Amino acid sequence: MYGVGVGPGDPKLLTLQAVEILQLADVIAVPDTSGEKTAMKIVKDYIEGKELLYCPMPMSRDLEVVEKSHRISCELLEKELDKGKNIAFITLGDPTIYSTYMYVHRLILQKGHTARIVSGITSFCASAGALNISLCDRDEALHIIPAAYEDTEELLALKGTKILMKSGKNLSGVIETLKRMKLYEKAQMVECCSMENERIYESLDQVSGESSYFSIIIVKDK
Amino acid sequence: MYGVGVGPGDPKLLTLQAVEILQLADVIAVPDTSGEKTAMKIVKDYIEGKELLYCPMPMSRDLEVVEKSHRISCELLEKELDKGKNIAFITLGDPTIYSTYMYVHRLILQKGHTARIVSGITSFCASAGALNISLCDRDEALHIIPAAYEDTEELLALKGTKILMKSGKNLSGVIETLKRMKLYEKAQMVECCSMENERIYESLDQVSGESSYFSIIIVKDK
Repeated sequence: MYGVGVGPGDPKLLTLQAVEILQLADVIAVPDTSGEKTAMKIVKDYIEGKELLYCPMPMSRDLEVVEKSHRISCELLEKELDKGKNIAFITLGDPTIYSTYMYVHRLILQKGHTARIVSGITSFCASAGALNISLCDRDEALHIIPAAYEDTEELLALKGTKILMKSGKNLSGVIETLKRMKLYEKAQMVECCSMENERIYESLDQVSGESSYFSIIIVKDK
Repeated sequence: MYGVGVGPGDPKLLTLQAVEILQLADVIAVPDTSGEKTAMKIVKDYIEGKELLYCPMPMSRDLEVVEKSHRISCELLEKELDKGKNIAFITLGDPTIYSTYMYVHRLILQKGHTARIVSGITSFCASAGALNISLCDRDEALHIIPAAYEDTEELLALKGTKILMKSGKNLSGVIETLKRMKLYEKAQMVECCSMENERIYESLDQVSGESSYFSIIIVKDK
């Protein structure tokens, strides 16, 4: 099994290795979540006629629900592997960065199968690129903070660049925090980076109302 | 001008976009540093017969030396842009992550030229992939710490995954720090990830003596 990072949205951000694996694979495994169906769009030119395997991967806070679905996914994948088939499991961005794929990856390894990770372009690198800015230079640290992190303010107070991942759902709360910490002026945002509906905000003043799940906020020191 | 991230070492980790830009470019700009000549190896199949432009980019701690060389590089690049030529400036990994390219990028933008960033696979994502581990799941933060950071211990004490970049030169010092902070058992390392001489260390016990400049140490919580 290959866990294939398909990048943030633009099919041109697939790597040559990802394309090769997609073309060689017998089965394309697709996480069955509304968000990650975007991944199918990215790879559609390379998987024509291939067998698709939808794997339940709910984004629930209920760990029991999540673990049960990982076990079901794992069983579905094992059935194909036992038939001697190669599987490319597609996942947005890079598989090692907040990807539910990795749970299945670990289960499949535990069962004694071979599983490899195929790196992808991360949404935060693509977002910095779209903003024409660096994420870190010389002796600067970089802190990546997920929306669910328990004490965002503690990390926002650190020196270096801070990236707030998938903070769109709670955008007004994040903006309030940034204002209180005097970081609002230093924040920029990219929504749906490299997708058809990409929006670039060089200042958060340009943001109005709700924001997409695929939002990346970058807070630089200078 | 395009700042093209060529990934960590394996030519198959180039994106389709990077290959397209390399093939379209009139001039390939190459940072004239020992480390980054690796970038030339990665792109060699796509730049045959193209004009090469070597740009001085010394890795010095003397800011004056560095800034002077950036200005010289910028002048060399501008000459080509003024002739109407497209330039692909190749840089290892991703251009937004610790790349000296960004200094030239900013100067070229300031002069009124157009410059775009083409994202690449980062060495830390590829390293986690080679180790078959995730960098961050669910509510975990990720901290990227450069070798030159002034207070590494402060960041190593944070919750979440810590990545020590390019720490090979001072490996014995880093190992000492990790031992003192009881993080040694949780650390793994990849040297020259995805290059011909890649080495994977699932434990730092396997490390003997010196290490390459291209070393990534990953410290996970669990």
